[in-house]
Amino acid sequence: GGGGISCVLQDGDVFEKAGVNVSVVSGLLSEEATRQMRSRGKSLKAKDGKLPFCAMGVSSVIHPKNPHVPTMHFNYRYFEIEEADGTIQWWFGGGTDLTPTYLNEEDAIHFHKTLKEACDKHDLKLYPKYKKWCDDYFYIKHRGERRGIGGIFFDDLDSPSKEEVFQFVKSCAKAVVPCYVPIVKKHCQDSFTPEEKLWQQLRRGRYVEFNLVYDRGTKFGLLTPGSRIESILMSLPLTARWEYMHTPPASSKEAEILEVLRNPKDWVH
Amino acid sequence: GGGGISCVLQDGDVFEKAGVNVSVVSGLLSEEATRQMRSRGKSLKAKDGKLPFCAMGVSSVIHPKNPHVPTMHFNYRYFEIEEADGTIQWWFGGGTDLTPTYLNEEDAIHFHKTLKEACDKHDLKLYPKYKKWCDDYFYIKHRGERRGIGGIFFDDLDSPSKEEVFQFVKSCAKAVVPCYVPIVKKHCQDSFTPEEKLWQQLRRGRYVEFNLVYDRGTKFGLLTPGSRIESILMSLPLTARWEYMHTPPASSKEAEILEVLRNPKDWVH
Repeated sequence: GGGGISCVLQDGDVFEKAGVNVSVVSGLLSEEATRQMRSRGKSLKAKDGKLPFCAMGVSSVIHPKNPHVPTMHFNYRYFEIEEADGTIQWWFGGGTDLTPTYLNEEDAIHFHKTLKEACDKHDLKLYPKYKKWCDDYFYIKHRGERRGIGGIFFDDLDSPSKEEVFQFVKSCAKAVVPCYVPIVKKHCQDSFTPEEKLWQQLRRGRYVEFNLVYDRGTKFGLLTPGSRIESILMSLPLTARWEYMHTPPASSKEAEILEVLRNPKDWVH
Repeated sequence: GGGGISCVLQDGDVFEKAGVNVSVVSGLLSEEATRQMRSRGKSLKAKDGKLPFCAMGVSSVIHPKNPHVPTMHFNYRYFEIEEADGTIQWWFGGGTDLTPTYLNEEDAIHFHKTLKEACDKHDLKLYPKYKKWCDDYFYIKHRGERRGIGGIFFDDLDSPSKEEVFQFVKSCAKAVVPCYVPIVKKHCQDSFTPEEKLWQQLRRGRYVEFNLVYDRGTKFGLLTPGSRIESILMSLPLTARWEYMHTPPASSKEAEILEVLRNPKDWVH
């Protein structure tokens, strides 16, 4: 049971589709859903194969109209599971990541730098670790590409203490607006060609592939009985495109972003 | 190893995207790929977790431009697996199914009747059984809808004999053209509105959802090392659309097809 609020803006002037979900849910997890939940192979002792759980989170995906404004996604969440012996397992997870249609190095650096600053306030080890985790997580294996230029991603965070992890997650969440809004303001009036819009649509196709084939949050949602499908699939773009064997010419702007999606870069040191 | 030939027509006058794959592949199956391969829970005894296999098939997906011409898919395939003790397991699988944007009862009856006639030549029990299997297979669980109005689908066919099954599969394959081409000819000049095109795009979104989340062939392909991604994802439409909370008005033509996708009908008796 439980519920939440979804707000979606569609076909706006700046954003093609932008949504925010806030949700608090609880119930019994099936074994399959449990497998999708945790990234580590930690075993959870269930009573008759079912685990009582409670989850809450906020997530958002913003797909802009202009191909020079990147798509942004963030999600911050808290989980609790009760094992057969009454033990409560809790953890936080989340992240913020950017999916540009075209590479703008200045924007990439600004985005990663803002996230790094939020992490560094808590521990200098966090940003490098969660930056790499993000590159690894948003990997479209069958394409050999990442979904975007990353950001930070973490899961199963349960130490040093609930309060300290919560403070860290709050810092990350507070960094979302300064990460992204300046990039939107900078580019939302940029002119663009039909060819650039077409490339954006092909990249949106890859976004759909990642979300439907790999994303753990989406899989968890689709497997949870009674979950709200429209909220889960809110992350999909308004429109997407698949062309057979589309390969951008070498040294084109399209090839430039592909190179970075295939070989992630360190944007800040 | 192995190979195949893919032919794709894109942005044609009648067809938005239409492809045919012919392939013959062999190699070692991972355990995960094996799980995706067979619909029944038959256990295959592997040597060190790997199974030598050989597979061949022909498949095609045709997405027309005009929303009054349905999408058609067919796939006929043959598999062989060698177990640890040298036993060869073989089976045929396949099917033909139709995904209209709008319901045309006459077309639905023609399509199913042509398939039924192909099946009836071999055994009167086949059509009802494989019609139901098709409705069950192309089920988008999270939507409570089938991908289309079905057709026939079967898998793991290994009796009464290889020759008899092959004759049956040939009859099915020969029925593809008389099933579909008359429907294309009848409607490819129909006029349509922008609203009808938009509904087609939303239905294409559902097609993507089925193929990426549920389709066993797609999952098998994405998991097989060295498989050709462009051939596997050829089945995706050129363009698709996702609108938040799109619900067609009651008694509309859009609601009419949804009703049939939610509650499959028997088109021939």
